Amino acid sequence: MPELRYNRLNDTWVIISKERAKRPHDYPTDWHKEKGDINKCPFEPGKEHLTPPEVFAVREPGTQPNTPGWKVRVIPNKFPALRPDEQFFRDSEDIHDKMGGFGYHEVIIDTPDHYKRFQDFSVGEMYLMLSVFRERMRQLYQDSSVYYVQVFKNHGKEAGKSLYHSHSQLIALPRIPKRIKTQINQCREYYIQKERCLLCDELKYELKEQVRIVHDNDRFTVYAPFASAFPFEMKIVPKNHSHDFTQTSDEELNDLAAALKTAVGKLAKLFDDPPFNLILHTAPPERNIPWDADYFYNMDRFFHWYIEIFPRMAIHAGFELGTEFFINPTPPEEAAKYLREKNL
Amino acid sequence: MPELRYNRLNDTWVIISKERAKRPHDYPTDWHKEKGDINKCPFEPGKEHLTPPEVFAVREPGTQPNTPGWKVRVIPNKFPALRPDEQFFRDSEDIHDKMGGFGYHEVIIDTPDHYKRFQDFSVGEMYLMLSVFRERMRQLYQDSSVYYVQVFKNHGKEAGKSLYHSHSQLIALPRIPKRIKTQINQCREYYIQKERCLLCDELKYELKEQVRIVHDNDRFTVYAPFASAFPFEMKIVPKNHSHDFTQTSDEELNDLAAALKTAVGKLAKLFDDPPFNLILHTAPPERNIPWDADYFYNMDRFFHWYIEIFPRMAIHAGFELGTEFFINPTPPEEAAKYLREKNL
Repeated sequence: MPELRYNRLNDTWVIISKERAKRPHDYPTDWHKEKGDINKCPFEPGKEHLTPPEVFAVREPGTQPNTPGWKVRVIPNKFPALRPDEQFFRDSEDIHDKMGGFGYHEVIIDTPDHYKRFQDFSVGEMYLMLSVFRERMRQLYQDSSVYYVQVFKNHGKEAGKSLYHSHSQLIALPRIPKRIKTQINQCREYYIQKERCLLCDELKYELKEQVRIVHDNDRFTVYAPFASAFPFEMKIVPKNHSHDFTQTSDEELNDLAAALKTAVGKLAKLFDDPPFNLILHTAPPERNIPWDADYFYNMDRFFHWYIEIFPRMAIHAGFELGTEFFINPTPPEEAAKYLREKNL
Repeated sequence: MPELRYNRLNDTWVIISKERAKRPHDYPTDWHKEKGDINKCPFEPGKEHLTPPEVFAVREPGTQPNTPGWKVRVIPNKFPALRPDEQFFRDSEDIHDKMGGFGYHEVIIDTPDHYKRFQDFSVGEMYLMLSVFRERMRQLYQDSSVYYVQVFKNHGKEAGKSLYHSHSQLIALPRIPKRIKTQINQCREYYIQKERCLLCDELKYELKEQVRIVHDNDRFTVYAPFASAFPFEMKIVPKNHSHDFTQTSDEELNDLAAALKTAVGKLAKLFDDPPFNLILHTAPPERNIPWDADYFYNMDRFFHWYIEIFPRMAIHAGFELGTEFFINPTPPEEAAKYLREKNL
């Protein structure tokens, strides 16, 4: 029996196939496995001159910028989608609207080890990466032309990764992206109606039901969303209501690192290192949009930051692209069960 | 110089990379080329018993249903995402909303020839396929529980196609999908402001500017949209304002077939048969949504049906999935130039 489920946060519907539910062994495991040529890898320690100069790094004491000794290194993308030296402006071309290509596009090299896969990071290494996300986001939001910073990690070639060496990316935008606006609006509408946070409610319900829970620690819960658009999709949600990832404490970040390691570790074991995207969703600063105040003020009350993991084991084709309806061949209850039971 | 461009119809922004613009030879051409085993193909004439019984077909006179002699054959998908024998209902599960899995999921086998690629269809064969889309949509909209019929074609494995033998699909939904709702709303807002159709205006401007035009005939124009989300994306738009594809005349369908053949032919030649999705966008019937009348009434004035072709030569990764912002490495002006100049 198929079932249609509503994803309130994204305002999308998902078709959950129950009848012909795909079990883990129905998915491919022959992912692109080439490790890339370490001799040509520009992310290796000792080859710092091959990349643009670093804008931030976590380093061993006493080491100099753009030399070895770093644990996490942030550099401008050599082929940036947006550039900080472009002008910030809005313009038009007859009937079409456009903007200047201002922004930041940075690469966060989250390990000096070419061969280390993300799921094999220690909790400490995950923590370090997350703390660099937090720090660099704080820094970029100092620039008042930055409306939103999207942090993400593409893992595996099929998920859009072009270099093998593990890295994350961020793109700082001169505009609130549509999906964030949708989410803010959906959370706001919910709050206006109930004076409760949408994600707090969801988390409370999922913890009561337990069937979609993958992992739970003191400060974070990992679960398969009720209306997952991707098979084996996961959401990592802080238990304490908080709208802004950049305000996360070190203690919270440590529990997040543990939850993240568990989530990606289980996924990697279940499907032999499948491709996935990791995406951080957090509230933008309120300052930039006074002319659209309804949407953005009081986000601290109704928005709730979270991380989503989208495994890319099924292709979104014409139907999904045409409609923003999704077909998910594995019910999240089953996905959660397989993930929960997979030992690390 | 990167530039951000607004896609008014979809309410999304696209980053157009101008500086490091990718030219045709920068894209891969090593697409999945396996032709599938014809002996195992359930779409071959003579193997009609391997599929569910046909619901419609264009046949040679005197031939019987579910026997050879068909030119286009429509069958229920053997593994349907939605089913007509499911109940049509709306329901909830505590905080979550859901619906019954009612709907139709059909396969349109648009040629009996296993090896014929879509770009090699004659104009007559394209016409036949389009006329079957039109007919089957008309039939399905007789069912008042059908809110929207999405017709699409996945071409190539990387675009989500699972069987090699050329086919299209349709999914009839018990709900207006989000993307259609967005488009209707955007066109409506535009019309309220200007009392003009958004796509009529766009087409008029593009025909004046010429730089993004790929092909133009008496009744249809093919162009690369100003804010293309995919490199070498194309839109095929009827010149006469019309909101509803199912009302298209035979003469129009013939010109559409010619435009479509030109568009996919040029794309196939430029990139050695790349993967793409073909998606038909048309107004749903007004009858189902009286409680949300603002969105849907008078669509004949402000909505304009069209076909979009999304080449899948670049992967939408974490950034695109997280934000609904897109990065397009080839400006549509350049894409149109290459497509225009490619001889068939």
